[in-house]
Amino acid sequence: MGGSVNKQVRLHAVPSGPLQVDDFEVATAPVPSPGPGEVLCRTVALTIGAGQRAGLQGSASYAGAPQAGVVMSGTVVAQVLESRSGEIPAGSVVVAPSGWQEYSVHPAQRVELTDVTEDPLVRLGPLGNNGLAAYFGIIAVGTATEYETLLVSAAAGSVGHLAGQIGRALKCHVVGVAGSQEKCELLTSEIGFDRVIDRRQPDFRAHLKEATPNRVDVYFDNTGGPVLEGALSRMNIRGRIVCCGVASQYDTANPSSGPRGVPGLLVNNRVRMEGFLVFDFADQYAVARDQIRRWISNGTIKPLCTTYEGLESAPRAFVDLLAGRTVGTTGVIVAG
Amino acid sequence: MGGSVNKQVRLHAVPSGPLQVDDFEVATAPVPSPGPGEVLCRTVALTIGAGQRAGLQGSASYAGAPQAGVVMSGTVVAQVLESRSGEIPAGSVVVAPSGWQEYSVHPAQRVELTDVTEDPLVRLGPLGNNGLAAYFGIIAVGTATEYETLLVSAAAGSVGHLAGQIGRALKCHVVGVAGSQEKCELLTSEIGFDRVIDRRQPDFRAHLKEATPNRVDVYFDNTGGPVLEGALSRMNIRGRIVCCGVASQYDTANPSSGPRGVPGLLVNNRVRMEGFLVFDFADQYAVARDQIRRWISNGTIKPLCTTYEGLESAPRAFVDLLAGRTVGTTGVIVAG
Repeated sequence: MGGSVNKQVRLHAVPSGPLQVDDFEVATAPVPSPGPGEVLCRTVALTIGAGQRAGLQGSASYAGAPQAGVVMSGTVVAQVLESRSGEIPAGSVVVAPSGWQEYSVHPAQRVELTDVTEDPLVRLGPLGNNGLAAYFGIIAVGTATEYETLLVSAAAGSVGHLAGQIGRALKCHVVGVAGSQEKCELLTSEIGFDRVIDRRQPDFRAHLKEATPNRVDVYFDNTGGPVLEGALSRMNIRGRIVCCGVASQYDTANPSSGPRGVPGLLVNNRVRMEGFLVFDFADQYAVARDQIRRWISNGTIKPLCTTYEGLESAPRAFVDLLAGRTVGTTGVIVAG
Repeated sequence: MGGSVNKQVRLHAVPSGPLQVDDFEVATAPVPSPGPGEVLCRTVALTIGAGQRAGLQGSASYAGAPQAGVVMSGTVVAQVLESRSGEIPAGSVVVAPSGWQEYSVHPAQRVELTDVTEDPLVRLGPLGNNGLAAYFGIIAVGTATEYETLLVSAAAGSVGHLAGQIGRALKCHVVGVAGSQEKCELLTSEIGFDRVIDRRQPDFRAHLKEATPNRVDVYFDNTGGPVLEGALSRMNIRGRIVCCGVASQYDTANPSSGPRGVPGLLVNNRVRMEGFLVFDFADQYAVARDQIRRWISNGTIKPLCTTYEGLESAPRAFVDLLAGRTVGTTGVIVAG
């Protein structure tokens, strides 16, 4: 039943600039005991998304306001060690809102049974919020259709690399924007992006123009900032901008002003720009997961993952993610 | 048949800052003669919209690039003096793309027959592009419904004062933003806005918050800039921002950066922001005009108009419009 202490990663201080490993501390607490109707979970693996950095900003976000001293929040795959609920037997594998700790207790209705045989990082990544965000963003919000040009920012990221591949599955012409030459090559050579541009090149706007000769019908925006500003000037008439995340603004205390061209270019080109949260589509998750599973098993989608070992490595994984040093899903294996 | 010279207002220089009367010059040209299939028109009245200023900016806009020396463009109501077309008899009253001049010649298919008895400034304002933009912006793009809060910027303007009244007709709670205390009072006392805020007050954001206790469901944006930035922070979940115009950015050579909160607040609140041009709804103009005519005749909509006399006054009218010194439709009576 593991150890008798519960290792946790807690937020040491609310970060005031780019996130540091030292903004977290590793601590221990007693292993909690489940009450009636509750389950005791042991974390197997967790994934980290750039959007979690928004939850650490002082300003309001959908993730609420941060507090020093609390266990870092997050969704995990866990094994049920002990159950006081008839619904979730001991030995089950579940998805749970455990946060960054080894052991946690939850009411049975707060955890979701999942397939024991499924890779936990696939369950949390392509079949979790990242993959679902890519799916609903492309299909429901962006309404991308074949032969359209799809542009994806943070294209090597946890959501972006899936959004681009879903676009390819829909027969879109898929152009990515990524943060290094290595990522650009990976995305074109390994997972079928038609073209990927390095946003760090000084002549990024010229490259973007050259890479989108038919302009852009759907822009899947994971970043905001300068890439959004560049995309705005390339939108086709009746183009759609899917606002999924704002990675350019998370890891800072001072979010920059908005992109030039809003709202002028939206008017001229009749562009729709729409934000969404994946939770709004919860009633359609099962259908989406079935489709994503099929795409993965027939090779249409190749999930990418950067994996860290041990709960203690989670702060480093988060810092690496925000600095652009990971590709695909950023995952931490907590218990082998 | 009027005089034998054609008085014209031409663009003297492409303006580099706020528009001046001296950016235009009054000149004369021969009265043109209609060729086969053409009609000779005498301008009766014209209206001016703030969006026409965008057409005078060096940068691209839907209105195309400006050129010094050309007759200022614009839509007018005109009388057909001479016809060489079987479709449009002499004596007809038409809407024509004549620009700012007394006489003009057009192919018959470029002019639109209109009702002789209708006030030309009503035909060009509430029944023209301004009123149609308000109608389709509120109904088709914003999908405003009863009991929702509708916020309108440039609320005393040619589009805004109609957008607000259409919102009232739909039983929305209508809050306006205008550029002076006088306009605020006019809109609440005369045409039924529930509340109007002066954007020039230093504590504008606090007033906006206080005036929208249920937040904002539809924001009809005629301005962009700081009012858009303020509205973004007041949007309800699944709110819609209708991007109709960018009045805050027209009368300058250096459009400012975009509003903070794009795209972050769009994501958090699942807000849709959508630009449109009225021309996209051309196949529905007849239905919209019938509805607007009914609203005007039963008193639901009271059109406001600021009228200038004589073609020479058009540059002054345009400068006044951009400086916020007109309310409602800005019209010029060219021939009595």
